[in-house]
Amino acid sequence: MVQRYFCPVTATSRLIAKKWHPVIIERLTNGPKRFSEIKVLIPRISSKVLSESLSDLETSGIVRRVVEPSRPVRIRYSLTEKGGNLEDVIETMKAWGNRWLHSPAKS
Amino acid sequence: MVQRYFCPVTATSRLIAKKWHPVIIERLTNGPKRFSEIKVLIPRISSKVLSESLSDLETSGIVRRVVEPSRPVRIRYSLTEKGGNLEDVIETMKAWGNRWLHSPAKS
Repeated sequence: MVQRYFCPVTATSRLIAKKWHPVIIERLTNGPKRFSEIKVLIPRISSKVLSESLSDLETSGIVRRVVEPSRPVRIRYSLTEKGGNLEDVIETMKAWGNRWLHSPAKS
Repeated sequence: MVQRYFCPVTATSRLIAKKWHPVIIERLTNGPKRFSEIKVLIPRISSKVLSESLSDLETSGIVRRVVEPSRPVRIRYSLTEKGGNLEDVIETMKAWGNRWLHSPAKS
């Protein structure tokens, strides 16, 4: 009988502890968006990295890719229930960042 | 006058969204530890990666390296106040991992 060791922090890290993942998840919390809309909301990400990240998040069951039957076809990305449940993680990251990393804008 | 854009999620990601960082922080929440003690608590990390991660976390002001004036010298790693304040982030990751990633141990 093998008892498999499970560490929820390690397991969660494996899925979301990547540079752009938390930010992409945060940008999707208020509703589905098209690729170009997400890109505008994350000025410094390249199309290649955004595309790879969305694909990773889809594989992990965090993001859903919805193809709308329009002409031309429209693709939108939204959070799954599993992805939406990451809101608490993102909110605590936001609070910590605001407390510890925010320096007043220089004029 | 330049208004600098600040996204707290992006800023926090830059510091902690790396594969092993959240786990190392979690292992230090209940007190300072020696390198070898941390390593035992994270079975799959290599010494090289643990060493680099601790150094990154020290640079970010999250971990403090304390040299004890003993013979031989003892080095312990602890969380700074800034690092300790990440507890909420780690706890929400833990809760999410337990809910969405935990599958019962196979026998």
